[in-house]
Amino acid sequence: MMDFKFNDAVEKWDIYEICLNGPDSGNPFLEYNLQGHFKGKCESIVVDGFYDGNGRYKIRFMPSFEGKYAFEVKGNFIETVLKGEFYVAPPSKENHGPVRVANECHFAYDDGTPYYSIGTTCYVWNLQSDERIAETIETLKNSAFNKIRFCVFPKHYVYNLGEPRSYPYVGSPMDSSVLTKENFNDYNFRREGNNFDYERFNPEHFSHIEKCIAILRDLNIEADLILLHPYDRWGFSMMTEKQDDLYIKYCVARFASYRNIWWSLANEYDLIPHKSISDWERIAGIICEKDPYNHLRSIHNCRPFYDHSRPWITHCSIQRQDLYKHVEYTDEWRSKWRKPIVLDEISYEGDIQHGWGNINGQELVRRFWESAVRGGYPGHGETFFHPEDVLWWSHGGKLHGESHKRFGFLLKIMKETPGFGLRQLSLNWDDVCGTADDVNAFIKPIKDYYLFYFSFMCPTFREYHFDDDTKFQVNVIDTWNMTVEDKGVHQGKFNIDLGGRQYMAVQMKKVKE
Amino acid sequence: MMDFKFNDAVEKWDIYEICLNGPDSGNPFLEYNLQGHFKGKCESIVVDGFYDGNGRYKIRFMPSFEGKYAFEVKGNFIETVLKGEFYVAPPSKENHGPVRVANECHFAYDDGTPYYSIGTTCYVWNLQSDERIAETIETLKNSAFNKIRFCVFPKHYVYNLGEPRSYPYVGSPMDSSVLTKENFNDYNFRREGNNFDYERFNPEHFSHIEKCIAILRDLNIEADLILLHPYDRWGFSMMTEKQDDLYIKYCVARFASYRNIWWSLANEYDLIPHKSISDWERIAGIICEKDPYNHLRSIHNCRPFYDHSRPWITHCSIQRQDLYKHVEYTDEWRSKWRKPIVLDEISYEGDIQHGWGNINGQELVRRFWESAVRGGYPGHGETFFHPEDVLWWSHGGKLHGESHKRFGFLLKIMKETPGFGLRQLSLNWDDVCGTADDVNAFIKPIKDYYLFYFSFMCPTFREYHFDDDTKFQVNVIDTWNMTVEDKGVHQGKFNIDLGGRQYMAVQMKKVKE
Repeated sequence: MMDFKFNDAVEKWDIYEICLNGPDSGNPFLEYNLQGHFKGKCESIVVDGFYDGNGRYKIRFMPSFEGKYAFEVKGNFIETVLKGEFYVAPPSKENHGPVRVANECHFAYDDGTPYYSIGTTCYVWNLQSDERIAETIETLKNSAFNKIRFCVFPKHYVYNLGEPRSYPYVGSPMDSSVLTKENFNDYNFRREGNNFDYERFNPEHFSHIEKCIAILRDLNIEADLILLHPYDRWGFSMMTEKQDDLYIKYCVARFASYRNIWWSLANEYDLIPHKSISDWERIAGIICEKDPYNHLRSIHNCRPFYDHSRPWITHCSIQRQDLYKHVEYTDEWRSKWRKPIVLDEISYEGDIQHGWGNINGQELVRRFWESAVRGGYPGHGETFFHPEDVLWWSHGGKLHGESHKRFGFLLKIMKETPGFGLRQLSLNWDDVCGTADDVNAFIKPIKDYYLFYFSFMCPTFREYHFDDDTKFQVNVIDTWNMTVEDKGVHQGKFNIDLGGRQYMAVQMKKVKE
Repeated sequence: MMDFKFNDAVEKWDIYEICLNGPDSGNPFLEYNLQGHFKGKCESIVVDGFYDGNGRYKIRFMPSFEGKYAFEVKGNFIETVLKGEFYVAPPSKENHGPVRVANECHFAYDDGTPYYSIGTTCYVWNLQSDERIAETIETLKNSAFNKIRFCVFPKHYVYNLGEPRSYPYVGSPMDSSVLTKENFNDYNFRREGNNFDYERFNPEHFSHIEKCIAILRDLNIEADLILLHPYDRWGFSMMTEKQDDLYIKYCVARFASYRNIWWSLANEYDLIPHKSISDWERIAGIICEKDPYNHLRSIHNCRPFYDHSRPWITHCSIQRQDLYKHVEYTDEWRSKWRKPIVLDEISYEGDIQHGWGNINGQELVRRFWESAVRGGYPGHGETFFHPEDVLWWSHGGKLHGESHKRFGFLLKIMKETPGFGLRQLSLNWDDVCGTADDVNAFIKPIKDYYLFYFSFMCPTFREYHFDDDTKFQVNVIDTWNMTVEDKGVHQGKFNIDLGGRQYMAVQMKKVKE
């Protein structure tokens, strides 16, 4: 009988893990497989196990229901089917389950709690030193971020010439001492000098990422995990179909049981010359087949958008295509694809040389509000010049900007929205207005809730006249200074003073008689 | 013999005027006509005269060449052809002649001096009290504006409920004491209560406007004269074809000899329900026929653009169609219509309730630079809330904003452009760059002149590498603080420090060996 461990209880949407010993000869990643079959009253799910090195194999399962579960484990190295039972307890208070698409605009946790995404990007925060990672976690703890984009693979790019803490494959990398700020681009998509076995994973790399995902989970932060990306000097973006498929399956087997996982097939899919649309579709197919929990799936562009109408895509992960106008297209894009719009790159707050990373805090906060009030989900990043090249956008660490201090306030306002979120409403040509995205809101001529945003405009006041009878409780919001001023109850035709300054919003809640 | 006066000399591009007495019975505007035929060595021009009231008739002519001219005056009330001669002297130093289209991007005065338009809008500054007009002129004198948009007809609109100093027609207006901020819109396009004879002009109204045009001319400011507009409680926008034609001919006969006249057929042509495209085309035809000097002609939109490819349109007078992106379309629009792009409404600096009039100084200056660096010609206006409703955009008076202080600096930089102006050049995706708009500039891979603008972006530095040999003298321009920092001569690959703040530009001039 094999060494076979399991616990007898787990919380709903947590991980039930089975560990067992097995062969470590040959290439276990290729030669050995195992599956777990988990049955509860309301679900029956098969998941792949994976090899975790040193002769250890694991199977992970995320139960979506409470109560008793039974399981069976089979595998090509297991002589007798292994069986067991466990009990799934109610979720703890902060555990709302995975995030799902609630409707064509919005997200909600599996328990029905609305989820208003406030994202950030730290591409390889997870591959930095322990000290840096601890610093990043401390920063995240004190932030409003509830989603973070990051990579499984290391990143080779401007300000990213250092070595990662570990590699996903067994082997050795090229000598990076030859890299300079001037020549680094010449090494992109060049495999020479690397000596990796692209069919033999380094389990430590993956188990470290799991620790990071778990920490994020415990901070209620969604892990928007980027599986492939183009900034590569190690050959990880140039693997064969077989190697890619092996990798994708390994990621799903290891990570899918974390409730806070989102699958981002790529950062800037269109910049990887070694992948075609049919590759992305094949990879998407594997994820759909292998992830029994249907975690959110997206693919992020540099220039052309992917065809977000593809059924496997749950939400649009968008990098803006235009220097000037982008988040303002939220409604247009949603009308086209009928999926939630996540604006994962709308230029980062910073002062580096590149236009994708040098807007100021006011401008990024403006972009956040512009998208939020339209029911879109904006993303942050920070790219301040740093003498040691520690830029939040890639490395994590500390935040140096001004925008991040304002997102908690925005999130608080977003959480006051009735229902799952806002949807853009056309009123005057110079109003940006969101209203509660529920069916009733669109039937009724007068809505229950309005959130107007005035962006860079500086109105001294605005005039309103919905009808003669309906009463509204009105708040004036200074989105930059984070103040809410109660303007009392208004009815009929009325003016609201706004102080003639930028970044103001008006929130109106219908007074229930 | 009639009373018949003329001078014996005039400056090139000034007005040669002939006055004569004639009948004042019946309706002289309809019943009597006269024409002047002016012949010099290089031109032979026929112009209509006009009735100026009190039995006085006038003919005005603007000579475009120096030397001796002869003239003949005929009319249906003149028994014998009147003849005379005069001499045209060289223009004085500040007199460069009318502004013409120099090429598909740019303007120049008739003497070849480039004209970089820095416009403002004061719709009815000319119809205010003498004191206000004097104040406006003083403001203009101390400004960089070299074009101003204003109307012949008075304006009825928000913040514009007062009476004009005079009316263009004989008669009496409706009682405006009934108007309030709430009801004024109900009186738009309503003729009731007015008692005007739309076929009998009030010459004092027109001669006063001429005085204003002449003052502008002497300040080197182009008079972008709006002939028709929709903000009307007096019926001036609802006249018959016959009345419109009479009006247009009267305007041309009176104003065309002022070298600084531009014809703007309408402000917001599409908001006048009583005019169709065929009306505008007919009116344009009259102007083309009657104005022998071919002054610039345009028509300004509220929403849909007019078809600027119409041959009578010399340049595009554009009101932005989008709250967010507008001047950034300069190059796209010019590629479409192949005419200079004048951006006559891109939101005004101010703090009123409307989105067309409440951006701040930084944002308007940004829009000026965005369009200028693309070779477009931006327009200013000011709409600060004022206790007595004196808003620059309509009434003139004083300027209260911050943007106008920065246009002289912009104009100085524009005047450093080799040739007639800039044209957009595509370099990096996040560069907005203009280069000298001359044929050679587009043939040569390395241009003689570059003007990069970084808008809301905050780069700490930018990298350049044109080739290894060419030397550039580089200036860093802070467009808001109006500083120019000489960064010396650079060659090969080089970085230019930009301080990580907004609204910076880089100017590069090729060093001639």
